[in-house]
Amino acid sequence: MDGGCFVSERENLLKNESEITKEIEDAVKVLLQGLGEDSNREGLMKTPLRVAKALRHGTRGYRQEVKDIVQGALFPEAGLDSGVGQAGGAGGLVVVRDLDLFSYCESCLLPFQVKCHVGYIPSGQRVLGLSKLSRVADVFAKRLQDPQHLADEVCSALHNGIKPAGVAVVLQCWHIRIPEVGQSFLDHSHHSAKMGLQDWLSTFVYSCSGVFENENRDVWGDFLTLLKLKGVEVEKNHTQTTAKLCWCPFSSLDVPVFNKHQSTGDYCRVSSMTGPSQSAMISAVAAILHSLGEDPLRKELLGTPHHFVQWLMNFKKCNLEIKLNGFKLAKPNMSEGNGNAGCNQDEMKSELNIPFWSQCEHHLLPFHGVVHIGYFHASGDKSIDRSILESIVHFYGCKLQVQERLTRQIVETVSSTFGVEVMVVVEANHICMISRGIEKVRSSTATIAVLGRFSSDPTAKAMFLQSVAEITAFGE
Amino acid sequence: MDGGCFVSERENLLKNESEITKEIEDAVKVLLQGLGEDSNREGLMKTPLRVAKALRHGTRGYRQEVKDIVQGALFPEAGLDSGVGQAGGAGGLVVVRDLDLFSYCESCLLPFQVKCHVGYIPSGQRVLGLSKLSRVADVFAKRLQDPQHLADEVCSALHNGIKPAGVAVVLQCWHIRIPEVGQSFLDHSHHSAKMGLQDWLSTFVYSCSGVFENENRDVWGDFLTLLKLKGVEVEKNHTQTTAKLCWCPFSSLDVPVFNKHQSTGDYCRVSSMTGPSQSAMISAVAAILHSLGEDPLRKELLGTPHHFVQWLMNFKKCNLEIKLNGFKLAKPNMSEGNGNAGCNQDEMKSELNIPFWSQCEHHLLPFHGVVHIGYFHASGDKSIDRSILESIVHFYGCKLQVQERLTRQIVETVSSTFGVEVMVVVEANHICMISRGIEKVRSSTATIAVLGRFSSDPTAKAMFLQSVAEITAFGE
Repeated sequence: MDGGCFVSERENLLKNESEITKEIEDAVKVLLQGLGEDSNREGLMKTPLRVAKALRHGTRGYRQEVKDIVQGALFPEAGLDSGVGQAGGAGGLVVVRDLDLFSYCESCLLPFQVKCHVGYIPSGQRVLGLSKLSRVADVFAKRLQDPQHLADEVCSALHNGIKPAGVAVVLQCWHIRIPEVGQSFLDHSHHSAKMGLQDWLSTFVYSCSGVFENENRDVWGDFLTLLKLKGVEVEKNHTQTTAKLCWCPFSSLDVPVFNKHQSTGDYCRVSSMTGPSQSAMISAVAAILHSLGEDPLRKELLGTPHHFVQWLMNFKKCNLEIKLNGFKLAKPNMSEGNGNAGCNQDEMKSELNIPFWSQCEHHLLPFHGVVHIGYFHASGDKSIDRSILESIVHFYGCKLQVQERLTRQIVETVSSTFGVEVMVVVEANHICMISRGIEKVRSSTATIAVLGRFSSDPTAKAMFLQSVAEITAFGE
Repeated sequence: MDGGCFVSERENLLKNESEITKEIEDAVKVLLQGLGEDSNREGLMKTPLRVAKALRHGTRGYRQEVKDIVQGALFPEAGLDSGVGQAGGAGGLVVVRDLDLFSYCESCLLPFQVKCHVGYIPSGQRVLGLSKLSRVADVFAKRLQDPQHLADEVCSALHNGIKPAGVAVVLQCWHIRIPEVGQSFLDHSHHSAKMGLQDWLSTFVYSCSGVFENENRDVWGDFLTLLKLKGVEVEKNHTQTTAKLCWCPFSSLDVPVFNKHQSTGDYCRVSSMTGPSQSAMISAVAAILHSLGEDPLRKELLGTPHHFVQWLMNFKKCNLEIKLNGFKLAKPNMSEGNGNAGCNQDEMKSELNIPFWSQCEHHLLPFHGVVHIGYFHASGDKSIDRSILESIVHFYGCKLQVQERLTRQIVETVSSTFGVEVMVVVEANHICMISRGIEKVRSSTATIAVLGRFSSDPTAKAMFLQSVAEITAFGE
């Protein structure tokens, strides 16, 4: 620390939005350069601007106040007329379940998904408009966060805003699972690879105030039963741990030290475990944190630039020839009869649900899912090793991509390497569809590419798609 | 028709947003008055403004242009390098599934839910940014719509915007089910009353262009199979009907004629099948349509004001005493031993999943769901007829409400009418949470009210909640 107090938010007040956007754009250009990309190629030209806008929008909670939301949304509502009990504006539990939110992980700057359940017990003959529970939760979700901290902030903001008898917040959070250093994404291929959240790191956290705390735990039980009605099962002995380990898979990694340069104001790495280009990238991410109104020297953010860069480096542009050598070596596995791939005795073979991770070049956000590959081979031939197909998928996934190109590159490479007729289906969830403006949480994308017989014979294509449908059956 | 061409959109260009909002606010005040409500009471004070803002926001598609969305989001993307087939920016099918949208029914002005699936086949070596498929669909969803028309507009806008080889759009739509004239909401109590969309009117529509049309139907089959992977089953023989009946349950009802008054410009009913207050309400809704930039004299909108008012009139404030007479008559069904409702031999009885519809007084939008009622009665006593409890729920549902008050009123009425100790749980989906700003499609709300033993004995409360949980099990 440089001893001075943190002034980023105050500095930001003096800048206009386009100046802040420009700062982030410049930093993103450094990141693209570090990835070996040409930031002037057409697909990337507007990426810095898109990323800057998305980050500003995704952290707009720093510029919102809970009192503006709650104000004017507290309605007078009677409690019981007579008798002993709790109801309405005095004592009647109110719960809103299944609010889909997303937030940014403060440890690695990647978005994480949140399902938020909020309850409160009205007091003082007034209730809060129901949608405001969601809006208040979103103010804190739209910041750099850790799940427990998010739950605590939502809880205490609602408690202070509504002055109720008590507030309860339960969050289910899902974080992208990331390979450890030195491991590749392929190490996850043994997982069930159906699309969905089951492959994500998940955590349950809760926070409560007032009557939900120890003295009156039966209201907590009521709250949990109301969640159970919607299929949300919170373990009974799930307790708030005081020193919870950070859930982000990056948090356990080695963190290089960096500091703010006294004269230039730049954030520089002090140690030099990485090359000069990564060092520039790390400084760029620290500058982004600063532009978002955060303090890059805040304890929880010290490792963030390094973590985010480490994630990005999985998608560094690399030399095609070196990588493809591996595939060529594998080719002898196929029998010599491989040339007659067009004759009628050929069998269709398929490898389904090959998992992949990739990075959307338009938004610098991950997309991930599964690849299904079908091909024809002569009946006597050995089939292509699944591990080779996994390598091809992995190779084309690990770069800045768009799904349409990924699909085409896989179909072309499998065809040219093995001389077979191929069909490829890629199914993916795009984090940019979830975390940015449109926030379409359940949406998923599918793309198809076909070569040879699959393009001319609708029956062959339909047969392969049918085999995918049989195995996949509702990828949620 | 008054012979002049329709000028609403042009007129609107000359007004500023606050003038338009004011027009709608004034019309909403007429509606509240017609419902017998005091628009100055605290819960309703800001309702006209809220409704005006929500309607403007919910119909913002009239003020958006597809070219602004598509522009700059078409990216160059190669097709196949060599070989025969389809892939990438030339021929490779791209599908985005499960886009949650909502729209307004042009026949009754109530919101309807949409799950949108879009596919297209790129041509000319370019692809559209994936999120734009959702954004374009939303431009047309945010207008007064009919499902088939919505599908057709999305399809043709994408076709013209992307110039692809073809576009396919499948929509699943859900419309609120409304009782016929003279029937009450109670007639639906025989339905499975679990919360969810199964009680809604649903329809499947599709639209397609280019290669998805007849000459090359196998791509249509590919598209449907990709939907099937996400559990969306479109019937094979589902065909576009040329003269599809309107799906809105109101459309079959008698439509009174109204016209634009030549000198005042007001919309007035010509016939007089309803009273003067309803007549004013109908004119007010016609004025709202005009303020939204629509032509109230457009063929499809002629019945809309009448339909919307008819829906609203289900929630007219009415005299409590007359209605409650029915409950009093029912009381003799209970045995005389009813007084000792506190002793240990009492049995807990419950009536679960009583369906209800209500109207949110903050947004003039429906909320609906189920009520669970538990009570203690002496072991020899007859239990309370479910039909009486249904009547109580129905009575308190059919007015402008908030869920917290509904819950309290049910608990108080059951207790005072039958002298029993009662617990009430209300679970609801609020259309205002789905269709307005926060658009939390999966959210649901639960409220609890307890009287007597249920408030002092956590075990009794937990036992009742447990019985609800056992029956309800994941109300999706």
